[in-house]
Amino acid sequence: MTIPVAILGATGYTGAELIRLLDNHPDFEVAHLGAHSQAGKLTADVLPGCAGATGSMTLAAADAVLPDEVELVFTALPHGAAANSVKQALDGGKKVVDLSADFRHQSATTYKAAYGINHPYADLFPEAVYGLTEFARHKVAGARLVANPGCYPTSTLLPLVPLLKAGLLEAGNIIVDSKSGTSGAGRSAKTDLLYCEINESVKAYGLPRHRHVWEMEEWAEAFGGESTQIRFVPHILPMTRGMLTTLHLSGDSVNSWHDILNTAFASEPFVQVLPEGKLPSTAAVKGSNRCDIGIAVLGEQQAVIVSCIDNLIKGAAGQAVQNANIMFGLDETSGLSAHAIWP
Amino acid sequence: MTIPVAILGATGYTGAELIRLLDNHPDFEVAHLGAHSQAGKLTADVLPGCAGATGSMTLAAADAVLPDEVELVFTALPHGAAANSVKQALDGGKKVVDLSADFRHQSATTYKAAYGINHPYADLFPEAVYGLTEFARHKVAGARLVANPGCYPTSTLLPLVPLLKAGLLEAGNIIVDSKSGTSGAGRSAKTDLLYCEINESVKAYGLPRHRHVWEMEEWAEAFGGESTQIRFVPHILPMTRGMLTTLHLSGDSVNSWHDILNTAFASEPFVQVLPEGKLPSTAAVKGSNRCDIGIAVLGEQQAVIVSCIDNLIKGAAGQAVQNANIMFGLDETSGLSAHAIWP
Amino acid sequence: MTIPVAILGATGYTGAELIRLLDNHPDFEVAHLGAHSQAGKLTADVLPGCAGATGSMTLAAADAVLPDEVELVFTALPHGAAANSVKQALDGGKKVVDLSADFRHQSATTYKAAYGINHPYADLFPEAVYGLTEFARHKVAGARLVANPGCYPTSTLLPLVPLLKAGLLEAGNIIVDSKSGTSGAGRSAKTDLLYCEINESVKAYGLPRHRHVWEMEEWAEAFGGESTQIRFVPHILPMTRGMLTTLHLSGDSVNSWHDILNTAFASEPFVQVLPEGKLPSTAAVKGSNRCDIGIAVLGEQQAVIVSCIDNLIKGAAGQAVQNANIMFGLDETSGLSAHAIWP
Amino acid sequence: MTIPVAILGATGYTGAELIRLLDNHPDFEVAHLGAHSQAGKLTADVLPGCAGATGSMTLAAADAVLPDEVELVFTALPHGAAANSVKQALDGGKKVVDLSADFRHQSATTYKAAYGINHPYADLFPEAVYGLTEFARHKVAGARLVANPGCYPTSTLLPLVPLLKAGLLEAGNIIVDSKSGTSGAGRSAKTDLLYCEINESVKAYGLPRHRHVWEMEEWAEAFGGESTQIRFVPHILPMTRGMLTTLHLSGDSVNSWHDILNTAFASEPFVQVLPEGKLPSTAAVKGSNRCDIGIAVLGEQQAVIVSCIDNLIKGAAGQAVQNANIMFGLDETSGLSAHAIWP
Repeated sequence: MTIPVAILGATGYTGAELIRLLDNHPDFEVAHLGAHSQAGKLTADVLPGCAGATGSMTLAAADAVLPDEVELVFTALPHGAAANSVKQALDGGKKVVDLSADFRHQSATTYKAAYGINHPYADLFPEAVYGLTEFARHKVAGARLVANPGCYPTSTLLPLVPLLKAGLLEAGNIIVDSKSGTSGAGRSAKTDLLYCEINESVKAYGLPRHRHVWEMEEWAEAFGGESTQIRFVPHILPMTRGMLTTLHLSGDSVNSWHDILNTAFASEPFVQVLPEGKLPSTAAVKGSNRCDIGIAVLGEQQAVIVSCIDNLIKGAAGQAVQNANIMFGLDETSGLSAHAIWP
Repeated sequence: MTIPVAILGATGYTGAELIRLLDNHPDFEVAHLGAHSQAGKLTADVLPGCAGATGSMTLAAADAVLPDEVELVFTALPHGAAANSVKQALDGGKKVVDLSADFRHQSATTYKAAYGINHPYADLFPEAVYGLTEFARHKVAGARLVANPGCYPTSTLLPLVPLLKAGLLEAGNIIVDSKSGTSGAGRSAKTDLLYCEINESVKAYGLPRHRHVWEMEEWAEAFGGESTQIRFVPHILPMTRGMLTTLHLSGDSVNSWHDILNTAFASEPFVQVLPEGKLPSTAAVKGSNRCDIGIAVLGEQQAVIVSCIDNLIKGAAGQAVQNANIMFGLDETSGLSAHAIWP
Repeated sequence: MTIPVAILGATGYTGAELIRLLDNHPDFEVAHLGAHSQAGKLTADVLPGCAGATGSMTLAAADAVLPDEVELVFTALPHGAAANSVKQALDGGKKVVDLSADFRHQSATTYKAAYGINHPYADLFPEAVYGLTEFARHKVAGARLVANPGCYPTSTLLPLVPLLKAGLLEAGNIIVDSKSGTSGAGRSAKTDLLYCEINESVKAYGLPRHRHVWEMEEWAEAFGGESTQIRFVPHILPMTRGMLTTLHLSGDSVNSWHDILNTAFASEPFVQVLPEGKLPSTAAVKGSNRCDIGIAVLGEQQAVIVSCIDNLIKGAAGQAVQNANIMFGLDETSGLSAHAIWP
Repeated sequence: MTIPVAILGATGYTGAELIRLLDNHPDFEVAHLGAHSQAGKLTADVLPGCAGATGSMTLAAADAVLPDEVELVFTALPHGAAANSVKQALDGGKKVVDLSADFRHQSATTYKAAYGINHPYADLFPEAVYGLTEFARHKVAGARLVANPGCYPTSTLLPLVPLLKAGLLEAGNIIVDSKSGTSGAGRSAKTDLLYCEINESVKAYGLPRHRHVWEMEEWAEAFGGESTQIRFVPHILPMTRGMLTTLHLSGDSVNSWHDILNTAFASEPFVQVLPEGKLPSTAAVKGSNRCDIGIAVLGEQQAVIVSCIDNLIKGAAGQAVQNANIMFGLDETSGLSAHAIWP
């Protein structure tokens, strides 16, 4: 017996990756696809490479009534738009994994600071579980609504939290320098995302305070037990997938940090701590749900940690499926691969 | 009960893709990995992204004795080197899918013309089955040795054979213009394959007669029933995976060709004929075992056919697994996906 | 004394390249920049990398009145829009190099067949000179209006015309397979030109009859003296600049073709015929105004010719400057380089 | 009267760029090309796109005797190898711009710490001028030997030095996160520089202490007047040219930093400080000798500075020509462009 699921926002890059993962999933079955602007078209005509049964489904409107049999809804809509769909799905008795930013915060004030809009359903915040799976597994298991973390926070918090918990980080001086593939910017027809503008170039953006900083600081404290101050600079790279985050850190007992990370993630199926001094590449996680973490000690109180994810998988669709697996009592790794697609 | 398999030549791009596909395969299990130059190393140290059990295997020498339990050997070695390993494996009672060119020809003369060397085991030619799966399924089923087709011949012959069979092609005037991702050139440390030499460039190569022309002409005749003359010009592109082949064709009743192709491949799980006038892209087949075929009629007796494959999958490792599935009586699609990884 | 020039359509990729070339030009000086949608902005804010005096110019509207002192106007506007600006400039006593398609044809019927619209100023056709410089130098010298050739026709006609003139080509069977960098598709905010859609992919487009086929056939006959039939298939590649055209040709005395090309272009500063059997790459012409041509003989009556240009230079802005140099009695190579920017 | 120059190490990426710049230079003329491994070949056969007179020169051995008339030698040889050629050229009465690391340090101890070898001609150190042009113009003017800075130090020191001079930086806590195009890794046939390994990937490397950290710290102190501690993490990106350096800085009066930088570089032809809050991209400096600098204030004592150069131009060959211009009393901008090649 498979579990029927819906994907709203099916025609963006994250939606496309959700479809791919769920198509290969033994327990979930795509039963409904909604899309903001392409309603009425065949999925295969909008998403290159979408084949088989899912490819021949007709896209519904993003706000269409969901079929009764659907038990789980993935919302991959823009922030702001997602909240309404989430509310509607919950009211209809479905579980939800929301890939937007709409339920990632614990207070409406923080949400407004980060996104500049008032939240229509802040009353749902208390039951929303922030689904950074490795640190939230038990809460996810019982959740009706999981807020799937952003890609930058995922690649930042995974290595950061164990060190915060250990109380060894200089928490007021955390510097995070991230490099993202262009798919993270979405599938909008904007001049600055054209091939010829992105190719053979790199730039920083989002300063002085990217929206994800609120999310990082909030959950660093919630999971790590310490209030932090994060200086975050994101960059966009000429590649489609992949995110590399370089954390420039200060603190105590830096020589113990590799062991701390190693221990924290020893039994994790999707987090791999590399041997000390070895540094990860995004090529090694592309197409997988893995986060690879490397560490190099630079001085007595200084270390660099580098983490790599596929922004569309562990940074979005893959982690969403990982959370959904847990919500439905399935094997957490079901339908997900730790093996990269290389080259 | 899984079937233990060996991969020889595991550390090239084709070998890496074989490992990935077989790692996700429900019935085969990687039991032995051999590599020419990296013997003694951990697989995960040589292949980025290779995780789990296979990643922790130690690479054997390419000519090491194979474990007794191995039932099937994939040889992804250079031509010339492969023949010896194939012979050894067959003598040891194993089945073989050879991804090199060593058993793709029916005569030692043709092999020598194409590859410039004498073949040491031409006596094996009669039992080698040329595994262009869609046209050789029944022979593959009973084969001990399958010669897996080259990527250029695969993308060329799939659309060509049905038209040859129909007797509608001007067979002496077939023009094939192929564009290949750089992974097709292999993983050798050569200056002309460096990132900075390939990036932002395109070039033709292999003229006047690329080695694959012999293979194309031989099997076009064998499958299509007509002697052909193929003018073939391959190009190398600044992308990792993907092959697009443009066939400039002349013949009769060109308006019927779309139907002929449609009928020929109607029940094929991995060949998709697009609606007339729609043209394929390699993006739509990347990561899948699919071949997409489009056709446009240019004039009364002229048409263009465009076919797209992922050169490492339908053009190599994927078709090898497809053949292996048939050799062992498994579902032909087992472990293979028709869904692309996009973007 | 420099010659003041205007560029209309300054903010597209071709306009940007014109600005760069003219900024480095000893005799022309950019005096006016017009742009369809960015009027009122600083050039440097719209064109990355535009520095110095030109960068600090304010963009005028595309249809603004031109300063009196301007002697030459480059129109890099979309076809249809360009015609009006050309007319206005000529009426104002200026010379014009039009980089659009609006004056590339000799009859309004052909123009309408190719572009689907009626031409408002077909009466100007007789005086418009088709500026494929190498074959039109003398006419360009006396022209008031030069129609700058398209990129596909430039890369096709340069090698084709000498062979047509020699009467050795099978003119009814010319197959042209072109591969273009993405900058050729322009700077419009379209989903299918986004980085993530173009990267790691190749596709054919524009079938059954791309607009440039009319232009190719018309000028192949005009320059080559023979009516031709051209089967043309363009492809778009994951690179910014560069165009490679593969001509699959049949005819007589193919062994003499290299000599014919060599002789035809022996004294050309921007056409380089490679030694027989050597094939060009776009990397070797990127950033230069050169066209590199290679030839390989495939059979008794068959040859392949490969030509490479930088689509924005010899295929657009560079050839426009080359023509402008001639129109003003300057050294034809002034401000242009035959040396590529590599890597 | 042009000045005859020699380039040793002509066939690497830096050598190729030197040839291109000098070919377009009004006052220098390439009279001799030496190369380690390609001696005896035509330059045009080894360097794609090298045309004209220079392309038809035959490559001499890297250690061949230099022609008498050569007045200036550019050495673009590997460190260690360069020192001998520099010594030989100086002994022959020529001036030298050395693009290797061999004369960038003031003590043999530091050199050995960074490069692991003993320096054969440390006695030349006192007269070698470290040619970070903007801070060393007067010394360069009288120099016989200029040590051309590394690309990472150039992009780091340009924005850093004015702030150090102002005494406002927390000099013990300078964090430098650099992203480099792959051409910076050179033209060696190494597996990890193959197209398929670099494409669609990003990685950090060179930890815990890249060789350029010694150079940065030494010259930060020499030019800035303060001893610094730099934590440096370089990354390699899937693009050919371009370097973006992100400096995560702490200090006092951060709101004044933009003014300080603006003032420092107000009259510099090749350094452009962007309006506050605007961030540079490598696309805007590709093909130019420019360094673009942007600054964003993050907090009371925190700022991020981003600098962009073309690693082969301002980071290597362009700065070398800039220095050579000064050494020979020419206009400093001669043969160099501030205008980028875009797209």
